[in-house]
Amino acid sequence: MTSSKTLLGDGEHIVKKLWELSAKIYYCYPQYVGNRKVGNKWWRKLLIVWLLFWIVVSFSVLWYMNSKAVEKRKETLTSMCDERARMLQDQFNVSMNHVQAMSILISTFHHARNPSAIDQCTFASYTERTAFERPLTSGVAYAVRVLHSERKEFEKRHGWSIKRMDTREPTPVHKDNEYDRDGLEPSPIQAEYAPVIFAQDTIAHVISVDMLSGKEDRENVLRARESGKGVLTAPFRLLKTNHLGVIKTFAVYKTDLPSNATPNERIQATDGYLGGVLDIESLVEKLLQQLASKQTILVNVYDMTNISHPISMYGSNVSSDGLEHVSALNFGDPFRRHEMRCR
Amino acid sequence: MTSSKTLLGDGEHIVKKLWELSAKIYYCYPQYVGNRKVGNKWWRKLLIVWLLFWIVVSFSVLWYMNSKAVEKRKETLTSMCDERARMLQDQFNVSMNHVQAMSILISTFHHARNPSAIDQCTFASYTERTAFERPLTSGVAYAVRVLHSERKEFEKRHGWSIKRMDTREPTPVHKDNEYDRDGLEPSPIQAEYAPVIFAQDTIAHVISVDMLSGKEDRENVLRARESGKGVLTAPFRLLKTNHLGVIKTFAVYKTDLPSNATPNERIQATDGYLGGVLDIESLVEKLLQQLASKQTILVNVYDMTNISHPISMYGSNVSSDGLEHVSALNFGDPFRRHEMRCR
Repeated sequence: MTSSKTLLGDGEHIVKKLWELSAKIYYCYPQYVGNRKVGNKWWRKLLIVWLLFWIVVSFSVLWYMNSKAVEKRKETLTSMCDERARMLQDQFNVSMNHVQAMSILISTFHHARNPSAIDQCTFASYTERTAFERPLTSGVAYAVRVLHSERKEFEKRHGWSIKRMDTREPTPVHKDNEYDRDGLEPSPIQAEYAPVIFAQDTIAHVISVDMLSGKEDRENVLRARESGKGVLTAPFRLLKTNHLGVIKTFAVYKTDLPSNATPNERIQATDGYLGGVLDIESLVEKLLQQLASKQTILVNVYDMTNISHPISMYGSNVSSDGLEHVSALNFGDPFRRHEMRCR
Repeated sequence: MTSSKTLLGDGEHIVKKLWELSAKIYYCYPQYVGNRKVGNKWWRKLLIVWLLFWIVVSFSVLWYMNSKAVEKRKETLTSMCDERARMLQDQFNVSMNHVQAMSILISTFHHARNPSAIDQCTFASYTERTAFERPLTSGVAYAVRVLHSERKEFEKRHGWSIKRMDTREPTPVHKDNEYDRDGLEPSPIQAEYAPVIFAQDTIAHVISVDMLSGKEDRENVLRARESGKGVLTAPFRLLKTNHLGVIKTFAVYKTDLPSNATPNERIQATDGYLGGVLDIESLVEKLLQQLASKQTILVNVYDMTNISHPISMYGSNVSSDGLEHVSALNFGDPFRRHEMRCR
């Protein structure tokens, strides 16, 4: 007997076996089978049809159940991924709202008052005491706008000179890096400067450093004051925790700026720049722990600003060809695109 | 033929019918049935057993599927209810963190500085500009602690006298009520007072009113300063929106208070009290909209401080005897108990 391996072949094989069995019954116990050739032939055909019918039904049920299971898994993945993306966005925005509120604090108590009600000591104490509000922000710092014509008087008042960022390092130097401030050179002559005047104690070493002297920081600062929105850097490794993080920068304007101001008006009305360092990796980690459920999913977060070169912000880079769902993330910076991929 | 209405009776009925049918086949087409009495009896018994077996199997499957469906519904309800409770708690705490940060602002810029860097104008402008951070807080106000010995000097400095709350109303009068401040009587002599000195513009009418003169407000203020935690009032109707809301009160201490201070030390170190009015109804409404999914559930929030007399904070009071899940809510006040009930 030929035993073909296809499904239909297998079915035929079973039919043949049953056939032999029925023939055996027919010859050994003729009284049970009936005694006419016509009835015999009719029964054989009915048996074949009956068997084929049930084979088709079985495979249909199998296929239906399987497609239902895949659909269900896809639906679960989509809803879980969207939920996580929305919550990450919410928590990011809560932290960012706090940093933005600090920019209003600076505007209200530093620039709108003469003499200013804020000095480094007050700033450090306030940021320290309100740190519980920004659990994933490792530090905030405020850099003031100084025109070249005001530089001399500014340096005399503060008792230090405006420093430029250490440019010996090939990678852009961020506020979070710990380097010896006293070893830094004074900033060369520029049209304007953005020296840090207040900083949370955790990043106090950046005080007096000019934020316009670092390439990436300069871009951020200029973009923030033009747009009036919080802008983000590309993700980079934070020195202390070695986690991936970003810096969000807000411009602080004079209070009389109308809300529909042009970019040029915004630049003119700029008083300074407030930056906060955010630990994205801890943020996502905490979120996933909060939402831990029976069904676990693999989460990756990417900075997709350069589509051909996505930068990982969270998660391992294991590729798989299983089900994947992509949820968009909006961190408030229209220039940057972020997304969450779940598997 | 007797037709009993029980399930087994129905089964018997069907068996009898089939019996009659098989008997018909036996008499009309004897060639198909076989020709021996023994075979006939054997087939009859087999048919009964076979039918009874399948009836039992059908009912078992039905019962099993039903219990699975109930279990599944219960599981979904539990996870949906817990998720909503956790998110409500989170959002409540975010709003409360902002109010607490304001108490640190008062401590840093008002009490720790001489002269103070905050006046009503600065407070109103700052709270107005940071209102986006407290979307569900209809207003914040700060009441300072004044001892009777300081009252005269305090009233002279501010140019108004400390007023007592309108006690003509039978229900406790809250900060949110709009009443004519100038019609209020001066506060009678007390050991100490808590007049509101700063208020967001939305509730500016409470300035100069003594928070210790209202029964429920007094309890809250005393409890807040003793415990060092944010304390909540029972839910009440807010005047403007007619939504249910609560007031959360934080005590502001002198900066040198150790974190493990005794209640008595806390009372001594109290500088004032910061209160925020929260619109619970909008908070829950917004949350449910955010989480709207295909499966809708009915949510109720209760203040269960007095177990025999729960106070509704959200939802309609429709009773049902279907599935219900209760999730505990922690709003940070150990004295009050809240819970969410989902159906």
